[in-house]
Parts: sequence; C-alpha cells; structure tokens
Amino acid sequence: MAGIKDVAKIAHVGVGTVSRVINNSGYTSEETREKVEKAMQQLRYTPNELARNLYRKRTGIIAVLVPDVGHPFFAQVVKYVEIELNRYGYKTMICNTTQKDNNELEYLQMLERRMVDGVITGVHSLDIHEYLQIEKPIVALDRYIGNTIPVVSVDHKKGGQLAAEEMLRTGSRIIIQFQGASKVESPSLDRHIEFEKIMTEHGITVYSYEMEWNRLDTNYSAELVNKAYMDHPEADGVFGTDLLALEYMKKALIEGKKVPEDLKVICYDGTYITNVVYPEVTVIRQPIEELAKESVRLMNNMINGKLYEIRIISLQPELIRRRSTQCD
Amino acid sequence: MAGIKDVAKIAHVGVGTVSRVINNSGYTSEETREKVEKAMQQLRYTPNELARNLYRKRTGIIAVLVPDVGHPFFAQVVKYVEIELNRYGYKTMICNTTQKDNNELEYLQMLERRMVDGVITGVHSLDIHEYLQIEKPIVALDRYIGNTIPVVSVDHKKGGQLAAEEMLRTGSRIIIQFQGASKVESPSLDRHIEFEKIMTEHGITVYSYEMEWNRLDTNYSAELVNKAYMDHPEADGVFGTDLLALEYMKKALIEGKKVPEDLKVICYDGTYITNVVYPEVTVIRQPIEELAKESVRLMNNMINGKLYEIRIISLQPELIRRRSTQCD
Repeated sequence: MAGIKDVAKIAHVGVGTVSRVINNSGYTSEETREKVEKAMQQLRYTPNELARNLYRKRTGIIAVLVPDVGHPFFAQVVKYVEIELNRYGYKTMICNTTQKDNNELEYLQMLERRMVDGVITGVHSLDIHEYLQIEKPIVALDRYIGNTIPVVSVDHKKGGQLAAEEMLRTGSRIIIQFQGASKVESPSLDRHIEFEKIMTEHGITVYSYEMEWNRLDTNYSAELVNKAYMDHPEADGVFGTDLLALEYMKKALIEGKKVPEDLKVICYDGTYITNVVYPEVTVIRQPIEELAKESVRLMNNMINGKLYEIRIISLQPELIRRRSTQCD
Repeated sequence: MAGIKDVAKIAHVGVGTVSRVINNSGYTSEETREKVEKAMQQLRYTPNELARNLYRKRTGIIAVLVPDVGHPFFAQVVKYVEIELNRYGYKTMICNTTQKDNNELEYLQMLERRMVDGVITGVHSLDIHEYLQIEKPIVALDRYIGNTIPVVSVDHKKGGQLAAEEMLRTGSRIIIQFQGASKVESPSLDRHIEFEKIMTEHGITVYSYEMEWNRLDTNYSAELVNKAYMDHPEADGVFGTDLLALEYMKKALIEGKKVPEDLKVICYDGTYITNVVYPEVTVIRQPIEELAKESVRLMNNMINGKLYEIRIISLQPELIRRRSTQCD
C-alpha cells in the first residue's frame, strides 16, 4: 500500500506538505494542494485515520451509554443522538450498560484515554465521584450526576401535572401508578411525586408500584403488573411508562375490562408503541428528538471549549389525548 | 499528565519495556511487568489508546449499519450485536443509514482507512462493486452482497412455509400480505414467495402489498395499511412484518372487526411489540440473538485471518402460536 512518502515523491513536495493537505492545517497553495490530491488519487492513497487522529488528539467519536438499546425509549434516544452527532461530524459508539456492571466505568476510562471525545450518558449507576474526577466532556441525559456535569432533561414535574389533570378530568377514583426506582437520582421521579400529590389533594387513591433499577426485561414487568392488578382489581386508572402501562392495559383487557369504559390509561414517554395498540393510548410525550439535539449541541460546545450557559436544560413534555382517556 | 518516560524512570526500566507491557507484546518477565504496572498506578498513567491502536494497526471498533436503529427489529439487532461484540472485546459504532444517502459509503471508506476493523451491515443500497472492492472484513446481515461477502440470514422460505401452514389451519380464505421491496436482493423476500405459492396451491386468495425500500416511517405504513384495508375489506387474514401486520390489526379493530374471530393475524419477526398488543399475536419469530452471535463470530474470525467455512449461514425461524390465530 502506498504511503505518505510515495505521495510526496510523485507530487514533488515534502512529506510535511502532504501532511498539511491531509490535515487541512497550515498554509498550502491551491496549486500544491491539487498536485498532492492528484498524487493521492493516482496511488489510491487514503490517509491513515488513526495517525490523523493522533495528530489532532481527537477521535471524532462520542460514546452513548444507555441501559438497553432494545428498549423503545432508548432506541429512539440512540437513533436521534446518532443523527445529530452525524450532522456535527461525529461518529456514535454505543453501549448497553445493563449487560455488564463495569461497562460504565470502562467508557469513562476510554474518555480519559482519549479513545472517545465525549460521553453522553443516559445511565448512572457508578458513584458520582467517578464522574467528577474526569475533566472531559460528559453530558447527562435525564440524570443528575453531581454539580458540574450538565443535564438535558424534561420538565417531569409538569409531565406529572399534565397526567394528573387528565386523569382528574376522566373522573377515575383509584389509580395504579408504576414508577422508577427512587434510589436513583433521576429528574424523572418528579413526575410521580407531582402526580401523587395532585391526585391525593383531590381525594383520589393512588397505589404506587416501584420498579427495580435497570430491570427492563419483560418477564419482570409482567410480574409487577400482575401483582398490581391482583392487589387492586377495583382500579379504574393506570399511569406509568409506555411498556408498563400497556402491559397493565393488556392484563385488564384479558380479564374482560373495557378501555376506556372501565379503565383509563395514560402512558409516560409516548413512543410509537402507544400508537400500535388498540385502543390508542393517551400519552405524556417526551420530546426525544429535542433531548437528542440539545445533548449533542452541548457536547459539541464542550468539546470546542465553550462552557454551557445553563447546567440543567429542561424541555417541555406534551399531553397527547387519545382514545384511552375518552369519557362521554 | 504523566507520560511513558515517567513510568520508565520510576520503574527503572527502558521506555521499550514499558511499551511491551502496555501492548502486551514481546517478552517481559513477571517481575518487570509488576514493576511497570505499579509505576503506572502510582502516576495514574493511562496509555494513549490512539497511539496503541496505531501500533497494532487496529481500532477494536466494528461499525454496524442499519436502516433505522429506532425500528424494533433493528433495535434488537443492534442490542445483541453490541453485547456480542463486547464479549469479544470490540466496541460498537452505529449508523442509521436511511438518514443520509452516502453514509453507507462513508463507513466503507472508514474501513479502508482503518478507522474501524470491520463492518456488519443490515443495509445494502450501494452498488455491489463498492463492497467488492474492499478486501477487509464485512459481514452481511440478511442481505446478499455479491459472491464473496458472507451472509448471516434466516431460512425465510421455511418462515413463509410455517406462516402458510398456520394460516391454512385457521381456514382463512382471503389474505392480505405486506412484503418488502422486491428490487432489493434480500433473502427475506423468500418468505413472501413461499407463502403466496403455498396459499395459491390451496386455492386461497393472496393480495400482496409491497413496501418501498427503507421507508420505515409510521405515516407511510399507516397509508399502505389503510389502502389495503379499503381495497379488500372482506379479507379474513393478514401476514406481514410486526409493525405492518399490527397496524392492519388495529385498523380492523377500529372498524369493529374481532380478532381472531373475523381476522387471523400472523406477524413476521416476532419482536416484543407483538406481545404488548391485545390480543397477543402469533408470530414467525426470527432468532435475532443468534443472528447477532453468528455475525460477530464470523466477523471475529475474519479479523483474525480465518476464512469462513460456509458463506451463507441460515438460521431457523420458529412459529409461536398465540391468540390471534386461535380457531374453535
């Protein structure tokens, strides 16, 4: 395979000149650039990307950590983050962290070793001090990680309020709520606190079921849903993330209940699966595409040495009313 | 930050020795290795991964190309491929190719430039000769790309046969079938040919609707489904990939049909969404986890210079009978 020396020889220039053309650095005349590019074409020379990156001290790669890329919410997150990173000229490396406990740490070490230029993380199971030791670009997606790492999140308190108001409108009296593990410092817990607060103020009963952290497997959710259904068969409303609330709706339909007549359903997240089922389900939609855009914008700023203006960016959720909360 | 020279100084060895320890190459005594590692810990020295990779001429990164990582089938593919690659010590880079036409070519160029060690591709929109010019590890996932690139696929003809036999068992007479774009050379087309052949032999009417290639957006599928439903409201069976068949089932339920009484439904792929809906849907399950395992095993062999034993690996699909084809 042809090397940089061969290119220099054929173009009648020095190796340093070829390097400047390849790396687009320093001054080279238009004429010289053309000679070098012609020689590269002639020799079918492609510059070694590794060597170039070593020179620039960047890899152009961002690691994206999610608990499970197969999960509909995180699959959408990864999709839109990849599209956005691509727009800025970055490549996307992904990792399912639930599969191996120490993966999160491994990627932080890759950041330290300059194998990736930044980490966008939708997980956080390590001690916060592991993160805080690293003075390189990290953006947290919907997680609080210490006081220095920027967070792109959704106004979940507002989300909880929207869900509560919609549920109150339907006149439901006994609500099952599925919520995330409370030991994890996630802004998303705010929705459950707000939902329960408002419902209780209006004299509505809320039974909350808490998920274990990072348990996204379907057997586990089916078990939790069955338990909730059996504990309170009289419930006439359910509120939870897409998969759990839909699992509960299915259980109710199997047991002969009718939706929305006997049971009102509100999903949180609002991924496409809430549209696939019948009846279609009312959702508090998280702006996943905007979450991705903001995270990538922040990441790009940090890589280029700009500070973030605000540490916590909070996007607005939206109520989309569908058949599962219809009442007439 | 401490450098390799500082490590050498503290460990009382030469820089070459430190390099051998870091790169795990050449001979170093156990004692020397321990001295070097201790010095590295003491200085909190982490070797520059880029420099190491340049030395080894490998990046340890595999690119995985899919049309849309947000799609339930490809999300599962990417999930299991990442888990498998991780087991072999590789990192996973991903790309949604439908977002930008030339991305596929860009990743092939990255392979040539040694920025990635291999490409596992679930898409194929480029001319085959672009692939065949590259003498580096490429594994095709369920796509035929010329006569030299290995393919990991599913026995889709068998899949079509399983679906046909199940549909015959239910006694359906008029079937709507949704199929992929036939201009793409994909083994998955075999299922539709086989399904239609068997049904026609038994005097059953099959109306086939063809998807445009790489159109995975939900508006498009809703349109196609509405058209199919309106064209043949008398249909009593539907067969297609998960999202399309489920969209059709929803349409039928909205129109007041009952499943399975008035309409039998069989989904191809069998991702988790066929379990979320009510009634749960009979599927021809694709062995996604095994597809991922085989692709990664092949990839690892190719990177390490081993030839593949068989060029086309064909895995077995499986019928999982659920309520949507119940008949009694």
